[in-house]
Amino acid sequence: MNLLIHGGTIVTMRGNEIIRDGAIAIQDETIIDVGKAGQMLGKYASGYEKINAKGKVVIPGLINTHQHAAMSLLRGYADDLPLQEWLEKWIWPIEGLMTAKDIYVGSLLTAVESIMGGTTTVNTMYHYKPMENEAKAFAEAGIRGVVGHVCFSWRRDEDRRALEDLAKNWHNKAGGLIRVSVDPHAPYTVDPGYMKELYALRDEFNKKYGSERAPIIWHIHVAETFNEAEKIKKAFNVDVKGGIMEYLDSLSVLNEHVIAAHCVALTDKDMAIMKARGVKVSHNPISNLKLASGISPIPNMLERDITVSLGTDSPCSNNTADMFEVMKVAALLHKGVSGNPTVMSAQQVLKMATLDGARALCWENDIGSIEVGKKADLAIINFEKPHLCPLHNEFSHLVYAAKSADVETVIINGKIVMENRRLTTLNVEKVMKMVEKAKNRLLEKLQAQC
Amino acid sequence: MNLLIHGGTIVTMRGNEIIRDGAIAIQDETIIDVGKAGQMLGKYASGYEKINAKGKVVIPGLINTHQHAAMSLLRGYADDLPLQEWLEKWIWPIEGLMTAKDIYVGSLLTAVESIMGGTTTVNTMYHYKPMENEAKAFAEAGIRGVVGHVCFSWRRDEDRRALEDLAKNWHNKAGGLIRVSVDPHAPYTVDPGYMKELYALRDEFNKKYGSERAPIIWHIHVAETFNEAEKIKKAFNVDVKGGIMEYLDSLSVLNEHVIAAHCVALTDKDMAIMKARGVKVSHNPISNLKLASGISPIPNMLERDITVSLGTDSPCSNNTADMFEVMKVAALLHKGVSGNPTVMSAQQVLKMATLDGARALCWENDIGSIEVGKKADLAIINFEKPHLCPLHNEFSHLVYAAKSADVETVIINGKIVMENRRLTTLNVEKVMKMVEKAKNRLLEKLQAQC
Repeated sequence: MNLLIHGGTIVTMRGNEIIRDGAIAIQDETIIDVGKAGQMLGKYASGYEKINAKGKVVIPGLINTHQHAAMSLLRGYADDLPLQEWLEKWIWPIEGLMTAKDIYVGSLLTAVESIMGGTTTVNTMYHYKPMENEAKAFAEAGIRGVVGHVCFSWRRDEDRRALEDLAKNWHNKAGGLIRVSVDPHAPYTVDPGYMKELYALRDEFNKKYGSERAPIIWHIHVAETFNEAEKIKKAFNVDVKGGIMEYLDSLSVLNEHVIAAHCVALTDKDMAIMKARGVKVSHNPISNLKLASGISPIPNMLERDITVSLGTDSPCSNNTADMFEVMKVAALLHKGVSGNPTVMSAQQVLKMATLDGARALCWENDIGSIEVGKKADLAIINFEKPHLCPLHNEFSHLVYAAKSADVETVIINGKIVMENRRLTTLNVEKVMKMVEKAKNRLLEKLQAQC
Repeated sequence: MNLLIHGGTIVTMRGNEIIRDGAIAIQDETIIDVGKAGQMLGKYASGYEKINAKGKVVIPGLINTHQHAAMSLLRGYADDLPLQEWLEKWIWPIEGLMTAKDIYVGSLLTAVESIMGGTTTVNTMYHYKPMENEAKAFAEAGIRGVVGHVCFSWRRDEDRRALEDLAKNWHNKAGGLIRVSVDPHAPYTVDPGYMKELYALRDEFNKKYGSERAPIIWHIHVAETFNEAEKIKKAFNVDVKGGIMEYLDSLSVLNEHVIAAHCVALTDKDMAIMKARGVKVSHNPISNLKLASGISPIPNMLERDITVSLGTDSPCSNNTADMFEVMKVAALLHKGVSGNPTVMSAQQVLKMATLDGARALCWENDIGSIEVGKKADLAIINFEKPHLCPLHNEFSHLVYAAKSADVETVIINGKIVMENRRLTTLNVEKVMKMVEKAKNRLLEKLQAQC
């Protein structure tokens, strides 16, 4: 299908470019022209389905670089608790009861919620199951995703089988919508030897299933809390002195294909290493605050020109998949904590949620900005709302005032997946019913155990 | 009009009470019964317009205790700037050009945005003009409000006239919807003598126009930034040593009718004085972060049992009037900053935005909870949304997952002011057009000056 979006304001994310009364022509999944509506309406008069975007703002779809999509089932299940109690008494016992079907259903819900909030790409880390899984859910929802399998020292054989199945069946599949990743859980749950092994495995899979343009990446939690060095010492009797990134670098597992989530407790040396190796960051301010993990030194990393993207983390520690909220909190938090209201400008934060998100996933050749040759991943936002009135500056409104509910139409890979807030790919009511049922099943199983 | 809301889940804010399949009967402006739908549908079968709230959650309307409603005209006009440059080069020059009509129009917009986000009471401080003003706008929108006039040392006579007109014409008017306040701007812009005078003036007006149940309160910015003592010294050559509240107490201007906005830079002694005098707090976390003012010691104040409510501050430093956002940021921020994920629980934060908001405005006899005898100020929230699915806990969802756009129907003083997201009191499209026109007029005047 060919599309012409016309009449809206286009925020391309090529620098600070804003095209008023602009147009975007899309052929199949690709953007083939971007310019002024006046000229393009004539040029693409026939053969293009028209979307009138008057009064609306078109942005590149938002890119959520850290999720555990299946965990939406646990949204609001346990809050306001100390971290270890939260994990050990609440989250892990119920997670242990989740079936492949539950993972699939939870991921469907996250896909729906993401699309409805203008997010077009999600990087998710969870337990991969061959028959029903996050990749299947994302493909059905029509959302772009990097789907990983999370690895732990205690289940190497199972991990190896899951990773092989995932890479073989899902990398660069579903019309290019789905890519995969190798996901060591964290430096304190993956021992040094296994860490190196997983690094080698990513190389091996990449040669078999990946390409330079579409690499299989490495997705890992790093330095989420300040006691990570202690946890590594306790688990593997390894002394981490200069910082967690320095430790990982000593294992030779850092390169430009690594995306590190959280990066709260970093040393200066860590940041120098990240810059040198090209490691990308997923910043999750809402989750870090909610779990009281700490505040990541984002302005410092930005000064060093490290690529920083944004993530929601799971709906279990957020409790939504809303990237508009994450943008606003990211912009606010670092101003308040640094005492400097000029850091994290609206434009910079929007870049973190779009182009830098694409860079963090090594997908910037295809997504992250509205440019000829890129895939058409777009969110059309209705600006005719009281809270977006009056209009002084689009960047400001997109970060400080717009809400996920203002997203009206979403296009992913050239396909309209939401039109006037109705999904075209899934029956949302049905998904919600499946989720409530899955939740009830889980709670019953949990009760039966007690 | 009499109303019966039935079938929904009622979060009354009487402690942790939740009534599933509940009902609320409203006669004229007052709640006359709260209970289970089964019994009440029979009891109030005739003479009551029915609102079916199945799948929805009913809460007391949110109470925003710090606003400058007219400043919505400047939403997104200037962001990400150092505070003094922001004020002196951007905000004050354009504010100086605002007419009474602009103030009225901006306040209409804030009223609309507030109602659409489930806020039923707004405490606003701005320049009062006799003919067109915030009170008139609020009354027309049907929103409850405390409307103040902001006082400065440099305009005593003008202030006196404005306050007299405001108190006489608006206190306890519009069917009891509007109350008024005396608003010394801040300790660094109101000299010690004038501060005392304004305190005496509030007493005088209270005797003339107020009552014990409906007092005229005192609304003031206190300790918004860490250099306030310095600013007081510079302006009035007064040495503030123990803290800003201690200074105000030395003027004998603190009592239980005082609501202090911000309270970022407080000493322990300040907090002890606030507790002793019964001073109430309006916490504005989004504005404080955005302007990099600092982080208020809220958990410390809560431990001392000081009444802390929540505010958005103006849409110029936020940039919305969204109390759901404020609740979420308040809950998150203090966990992250204190390193303690158990502070500011969802239930406590919802109380700050409802019952404690009412207390902060000395209005708790009438609003802030769903109880027989109180005014019917209610927000009905549609919980059948993907981001509110599954449902484990209503308090958690209300603070961490619900959004202003989920508010479906709003009742203020027993009157339906929004039904299925359509306002019944104002033409929203017309208000938005008036705002855009007012903005353009302001920018033209500003350009003409340059």
